[in-house]
Amino acid sequence: MNVLIGQSGGPTVVINNSVCGIVQEAKRQGVGGIYGAINGILGVLRDDLIDLGKEDPFTIEGLRKTPSSALGSCRYKVQEEDYGRIIEIFEKHNIRFFFYIGGNDSMDTAHKIEGLARKEDFDLTVIGVPKTVDNDLVKTDHCPGYGSVARFNAIATRDAGRDTDAIYTSDPIKIIETMGRNTGWITASTALAKEDENDAPHLIYLPETPFIAEDFLEDVLTVYKKLGKVVITVCEGLKNESGEHLMASRGEIDTDGFKHAQLGGVADYLCRLISRELKIKARFDKPGTIQRTSMVCASKTDIEEAYMVGRDAVKYAMEGKSGYMVSLIREKEYRCKTGLVRLELIANRVKRVPENFIKEEGNFVTQEFIRYAKPLIGGPLPEYVRLGRFPVNISG
Amino acid sequence: MNVLIGQSGGPTVVINNSVCGIVQEAKRQGVGGIYGAINGILGVLRDDLIDLGKEDPFTIEGLRKTPSSALGSCRYKVQEEDYGRIIEIFEKHNIRFFFYIGGNDSMDTAHKIEGLARKEDFDLTVIGVPKTVDNDLVKTDHCPGYGSVARFNAIATRDAGRDTDAIYTSDPIKIIETMGRNTGWITASTALAKEDENDAPHLIYLPETPFIAEDFLEDVLTVYKKLGKVVITVCEGLKNESGEHLMASRGEIDTDGFKHAQLGGVADYLCRLISRELKIKARFDKPGTIQRTSMVCASKTDIEEAYMVGRDAVKYAMEGKSGYMVSLIREKEYRCKTGLVRLELIANRVKRVPENFIKEEGNFVTQEFIRYAKPLIGGPLPEYVRLGRFPVNISG
Repeated sequence: MNVLIGQSGGPTVVINNSVCGIVQEAKRQGVGGIYGAINGILGVLRDDLIDLGKEDPFTIEGLRKTPSSALGSCRYKVQEEDYGRIIEIFEKHNIRFFFYIGGNDSMDTAHKIEGLARKEDFDLTVIGVPKTVDNDLVKTDHCPGYGSVARFNAIATRDAGRDTDAIYTSDPIKIIETMGRNTGWITASTALAKEDENDAPHLIYLPETPFIAEDFLEDVLTVYKKLGKVVITVCEGLKNESGEHLMASRGEIDTDGFKHAQLGGVADYLCRLISRELKIKARFDKPGTIQRTSMVCASKTDIEEAYMVGRDAVKYAMEGKSGYMVSLIREKEYRCKTGLVRLELIANRVKRVPENFIKEEGNFVTQEFIRYAKPLIGGPLPEYVRLGRFPVNISG
Repeated sequence: MNVLIGQSGGPTVVINNSVCGIVQEAKRQGVGGIYGAINGILGVLRDDLIDLGKEDPFTIEGLRKTPSSALGSCRYKVQEEDYGRIIEIFEKHNIRFFFYIGGNDSMDTAHKIEGLARKEDFDLTVIGVPKTVDNDLVKTDHCPGYGSVARFNAIATRDAGRDTDAIYTSDPIKIIETMGRNTGWITASTALAKEDENDAPHLIYLPETPFIAEDFLEDVLTVYKKLGKVVITVCEGLKNESGEHLMASRGEIDTDGFKHAQLGGVADYLCRLISRELKIKARFDKPGTIQRTSMVCASKTDIEEAYMVGRDAVKYAMEGKSGYMVSLIREKEYRCKTGLVRLELIANRVKRVPENFIKEEGNFVTQEFIRYAKPLIGGPLPEYVRLGRFPVNISG
């Protein structure tokens, strides 16, 4: 009776906390071998497993402060013919509990494995453990990984705001491009940088709202005329009115195993648009994958919850639950407990930022979003001061 | 007898520590009014000064944890006709001590102001306080601001390395573009991420070495064949064999007051080059100005030294020194003391990364660079663990 853990999809800062939670709880419960698949389901297909039970407990505890999938990840779409091979490897190593940490693609994989095992009468318990910086899984309040990327982007946007405050006389416009694919959750989190009305970010654009260049330029000019500077955050996956990505590499080489196009380049494009149309200099930051792996910006809440979904996955499995993903359920006064959702209700679905979280003008988020996201980033941002309360007059 | 402080050029994480050092030391020494110029020399020309002496001491102390120029900065090249106006404002406010925090352009400005005051018999003490993330000032061991941007980039590169470790089966090549303009100091600092031979970064390209596309592609392919993944760091200011920037915006709108072209876009360009020539998917991160304003990555050493150059600037000024920039002098066992260098020896000069810091192949730095840079980032990087020491065999 052995346990197998796999990590899949894009890494997060806290994804190893889920591994740690599973391993520590499995040990507490006295399960047999505790194995890890190298590079997710690819490791199963290649029979490339490691023994996590033999690792030093300090190494396992060290996972809590180690970003990015320590078991390795993959973006491989499991083919029909692969499923037989997976069950074969599970039989070979007597894997009876399979915990798959990932997003909606991974929940689809987990769901299919569970179905096949059931069909072939192979006794297997499958629990999905949620993970995605994109925060786009349905049926869960939020996703482990999101709070930390939100904290990173809130800090980065506040810092970029301070930078622009200092140099707006030569560099008045800054655009920050965030990840998020087809949903604006990550981009929206940059709003948490804003304390006062004139603070960055001044404008936020999400893929949930069709991007219209004329409106965008008008928004930018309005803020520029008022403040002399503009900090804008945009999602890599912005779409035009026809629902096409503003920017996506088209080459076959730039799609992953799930045929998702490689996005990005939006901020660069918008800088050029502003320079051309408004004749104002604009620069962009694109932190890229650094935002999802930055342990110095990890949210304490996110760390705890990523551990909790791993630990509870084992508890649910031991209670005989199978074919579910562990979800997060928000309770009053911020605190979360876990729940279970059938894997097929998660697989391949996407939760977009809802309308009541986006301002009608489509260029910022609402207070409702702030209330939703603020507890997730694990405490206030670092405190900064401001100078300038005492102008010098001639008598001074 | 009043003091005036100005900040100029690109912000850093620690530049406000120098303001704090000046203000606190000036108070200790009982100097009269302590003023700040808003947006550097522009604030002088516009007679836009604030009274720092009236600020709450907690606000002044809070500067130590507040990134980016709190007085505001500028990239304005002072014109011949401006200098008279500057002296006029100084007379109006009885400014007798001028501390200008900046890089080589700012030292030129400070030098010219000092010369004119002397010529016009206006009693003025001028001290330059070094600041630049680029670390390109001559006659100083290093520049306040550099240690923190180096720490940011070392952490970001290590994190990107962990990210690539996890997802190399779908995203094998990552390029990180750093700042640095015409010198490779910042890019070189990414080498501090490397603990083991196969760790990121695998290749580093500095503007000091002419960039040759064929050699680059060969380097990339060699690492890729060996490890199946490559993390590359490049400077925004890479140049080809003719000494031209690989990528620079050409429009007039994209040059600053000193006619420096806006650089950037190198990583994007190199990703396309790799995709086209090697048919391997490559992605890039461009943290942009976030790297110079990220307080969560500040180096403790850098914070201390930025404070020290401010504090000592006041001490030197009170001893009657004028027309100097405060320098950092490295002593045995890492510790720095300050010294003085004539402003005209700093103005408009650039210190490039020396040959003995760059590997002969031009694609990495040497151990001598590591020994130079390591103490500057203020202690070890956060500790991460690695899994995988126990492969599962059939009997396991």
